[in-house]
Amino acid sequence: MIPGRHEAGETVGDVGEFALIDQMLDGLVDDGRVTVRPGDDAAAFVTEGDTVVTTDVLNEGVHFRTDWSDAEDIGARAVAQNLADLEAMGADVLGVVAAVSVPTTTDAAWVRALSAGMRTECARAGATLLGGDLSSSPHISIAVTALGDLRGRAPVRRGGARPGDVVAVKGRLGWSAAGLFVLTRGFKSPRAVVSAYRVPEVPYGEGRRAAEAGATSMIDVSDGLLADLGHIAEQSGVGIRISSEALDVPDPLQAVAATTGSSPLRFVLTGGEDHALVGTFDQVDVPSDWAIIGRVAEGGGVLVDDEEWDPEEGTGYVHFQR
Amino acid sequence: MIPGRHEAGETVGDVGEFALIDQMLDGLVDDGRVTVRPGDDAAAFVTEGDTVVTTDVLNEGVHFRTDWSDAEDIGARAVAQNLADLEAMGADVLGVVAAVSVPTTTDAAWVRALSAGMRTECARAGATLLGGDLSSSPHISIAVTALGDLRGRAPVRRGGARPGDVVAVKGRLGWSAAGLFVLTRGFKSPRAVVSAYRVPEVPYGEGRRAAEAGATSMIDVSDGLLADLGHIAEQSGVGIRISSEALDVPDPLQAVAATTGSSPLRFVLTGGEDHALVGTFDQVDVPSDWAIIGRVAEGGGVLVDDEEWDPEEGTGYVHFQR
Repeated sequence: MIPGRHEAGETVGDVGEFALIDQMLDGLVDDGRVTVRPGDDAAAFVTEGDTVVTTDVLNEGVHFRTDWSDAEDIGARAVAQNLADLEAMGADVLGVVAAVSVPTTTDAAWVRALSAGMRTECARAGATLLGGDLSSSPHISIAVTALGDLRGRAPVRRGGARPGDVVAVKGRLGWSAAGLFVLTRGFKSPRAVVSAYRVPEVPYGEGRRAAEAGATSMIDVSDGLLADLGHIAEQSGVGIRISSEALDVPDPLQAVAATTGSSPLRFVLTGGEDHALVGTFDQVDVPSDWAIIGRVAEGGGVLVDDEEWDPEEGTGYVHFQR
Repeated sequence: MIPGRHEAGETVGDVGEFALIDQMLDGLVDDGRVTVRPGDDAAAFVTEGDTVVTTDVLNEGVHFRTDWSDAEDIGARAVAQNLADLEAMGADVLGVVAAVSVPTTTDAAWVRALSAGMRTECARAGATLLGGDLSSSPHISIAVTALGDLRGRAPVRRGGARPGDVVAVKGRLGWSAAGLFVLTRGFKSPRAVVSAYRVPEVPYGEGRRAAEAGATSMIDVSDGLLADLGHIAEQSGVGIRISSEALDVPDPLQAVAATTGSSPLRFVLTGGEDHALVGTFDQVDVPSDWAIIGRVAEGGGVLVDDEEWDPEEGTGYVHFQR
């Protein structure tokens, strides 16, 4: 039996789709921007600037396992990874809609906990659960679409980095990957990295700060620092040079590396799904508390200490099952 | 082997997630409203009025079967059912984002055809494919989120029907259900109803017309005419009285009913997923070409010829597998 599912209580089938959707969407935090609340054919909201939209799906057995993450964590993570994409554009987060597919035999309490996790993460970010759909399917799938408001700011694109800029990061790197690494080996600790895998700590509000400070390009680290900086390098037509000395390798990552004989720097450079923000700036524009980790150069590619990172060490985040 | 999948050509795994997403999103129809095209962390667009958002998912084996519908049909239908929800608010359609999950062994051509169907349906409606995600999963799941623009109009809600209004409909009723009915019995004809099941014919632009004409409430028929009018009756606190004489029972539905011994009116009253628009209006406001089928009364519930519709005949659309 899968923990947290198929238990003795009411199932999704017992409660019914419409009733459960209503329960999922209950508790809208309305700050005046929502003009049509959930419960009609569609929701509606007001923006001050361009509307920003992104969508991302989490599938059971591919992106999460119900024995490694509880429903609240999965809901929170599904929201967090989408809101991080809005932060990376320099947008204010506004709300999310979620299309949830589960077997009808799933415990209704599991679905309620999932939506509670979504609401918690929305609240952390200053966003709102705007709408949703609940359908039956053979396995659990959670598709979230996030909506933001540029509020008159220009979007921060991937293609704006200029030689001479510095590269700066805000947020965690490698924690989620280290957490996944220990879980796949049957451990549940260090708890700090396992928690980071379950729900990433997105630096909410820092995307707007970076945009206001004049970031020339920005991305959130979902595939790994090197892979995501590769997107900036390619779309900007520049090279990016990272200094490993500038990278923080925190204690929990060192502990995981020491126990397993792996390289702690590998987690930092190639671990995805922490959704740190990394951007390029004129040196004088870097927001306080952002760490400068490298610079933008002529040419192309992403080098670490002026060398290509050893591909044996991994070149990007690979989901645990494909 | 499932037709149209797992064939000899390249698979999704061969082509890779990023390359296929790029191919899926190629061909954006840009009418100046899109300020950030797909390919960055998020897309961005401009609205003139409130932004309207809705999300809906299609799951393999629950909402579609790949031996009954080809990939283009499935993509078109996933878009159509979401855009219909925007029409039902009286909004102009703007764009969609799609989170597509498929097994990595799926033929890449199947995914390309799916997105081609999405683009075709977007073009029919005057919308654009704004972004997407492609992930692996054990079965096919297509979650679409649609975005619209009220352009300064007030949204047409479900709760605004007033006693004395008339009920009017635009679009097909019962065709999709009749198509599903014959498919489940192993037939492929009448082709008109099978086609209607595969891709509904949403009356694009009619939602705006109804809003501009002064519709007091509106909904799209996704669960069946009686079930969806039930939502209007409940949220408006009124009764709705339908006249069966006013309902068109077209030839293909009569043919299906005659062959199978079923009631053609049952398809019209309870068949879902054609996404006709049904609204309530002051009698003088009904747009031309909308058919008046009943009236709004004091009280509650939905009656047909002043009686409750026999529940033996079915009271709403039931998906073919739960």
